[in-house]
Amino acid sequence: MKSHTVYLTFHTQKRKEIVPITDRVEQIIAESGVQEGFALVSAMHITASVIVNDEEPGLWQDIMEWAEKVAPENPNYKHHRTGEDNGDAHLKNLLMHHQVIVPITKGEIDFGPWQRIFYVEFDGQRDKRMLVKVIGE
Amino acid sequence: MKSHTVYLTFHTQKRKEIVPITDRVEQIIAESGVQEGFALVSAMHITASVIVNDEEPGLWQDIMEWAEKVAPENPNYKHHRTGEDNGDAHLKNLLMHHQVIVPITKGEIDFGPWQRIFYVEFDGQRDKRMLVKVIGE
Amino acid sequence: MKSHTVYLTFHTQKRKEIVPITDRVEQIIAESGVQEGFALVSAMHITASVIVNDEEPGLWQDIMEWAEKVAPENPNYKHHRTGEDNGDAHLKNLLMHHQVIVPITKGEIDFGPWQRIFYVEFDGQRDKRMLVKVIGE
Repeated sequence: MKSHTVYLTFHTQKRKEIVPITDRVEQIIAESGVQEGFALVSAMHITASVIVNDEEPGLWQDIMEWAEKVAPENPNYKHHRTGEDNGDAHLKNLLMHHQVIVPITKGEIDFGPWQRIFYVEFDGQRDKRMLVKVIGE
Repeated sequence: MKSHTVYLTFHTQKRKEIVPITDRVEQIIAESGVQEGFALVSAMHITASVIVNDEEPGLWQDIMEWAEKVAPENPNYKHHRTGEDNGDAHLKNLLMHHQVIVPITKGEIDFGPWQRIFYVEFDGQRDKRMLVKVIGE
Repeated sequence: MKSHTVYLTFHTQKRKEIVPITDRVEQIIAESGVQEGFALVSAMHITASVIVNDEEPGLWQDIMEWAEKVAPENPNYKHHRTGEDNGDAHLKNLLMHHQVIVPITKGEIDFGPWQRIFYVEFDGQRDKRMLVKVIGE
């Protein structure tokens, strides 16, 4: 069994932003030499998500507006008593989940034609890390 | 390490539909010969989900009505400027997640008594693919 | 390839409750002897979730209030025609997902500084099981 672990750092310009990462995950899988296995792509913070969806900027805006509607910013979160102001980002992270498993077949990402991977930042403008861990043979 | 990858195709009669798939996943795991490992069950489109929940048609209706409430159909999604009309299906896919990992112990699905697997279609009436990838020994 | 499977049982005092489980997962990973791999932490019921988030009781309250807002208790769920009264718990389970994959690197959980694991009960006050399955080398 082979394993290969890489940590990527994101520092988004906006507080909330969607970052396409399929190419970087593909490169990490190629480096790993794994032909058959799984790549875990997982945020290392609890205020960001990793999703698989469409490479379409209009949809990205829909996704962010939807997240705001379902898990809105709100000064009254109890979490804010600790001095934080990112309660909504914790809930958005739960809403979209913080990780995906990417299947690897014959050394390549085994996706349908429209599937692309995105890092979704809900509390950025600072360094945030994400793990890619490849396991297989 | 063994690996076994199968692609299933669904073509639902209704646009939105819940399809029970536990038996098919069980059969694929049996074919794989894997005794200890994981099966990834993952939609290959970005307008469908895979979930683990209850074999109960009343609940399936509740799930679909809930998805409609939390991520409603809406002509105004920006994604629709591309000519698409399935913005809600992308959001429902994010809401319920597009994949599950099924644990395999002693050659069998290691589930609790009520856990069953479902493919959840949000934009069907056409061929849609789903991957089952078994990894283990 | 090594595998190690452990079943934990929770019996919460309240019907809805968040239970920190990072220490127990760490111990199971240590027992497994796996240095590089994945631990699947997965509810075996369809009315509970497993999440990764913050060790902060104010936030836990925010999470439970948010779940109630997005997937509320409601006597009118069709699932209740079967005699059940936990329709909301099924939907909350879908909202937060029932499982996470924990990456293992050099024998330890490979988390960011704030990531902690929680079992989230939505229909407790009775024995409920959760699986931890470690796969790797």
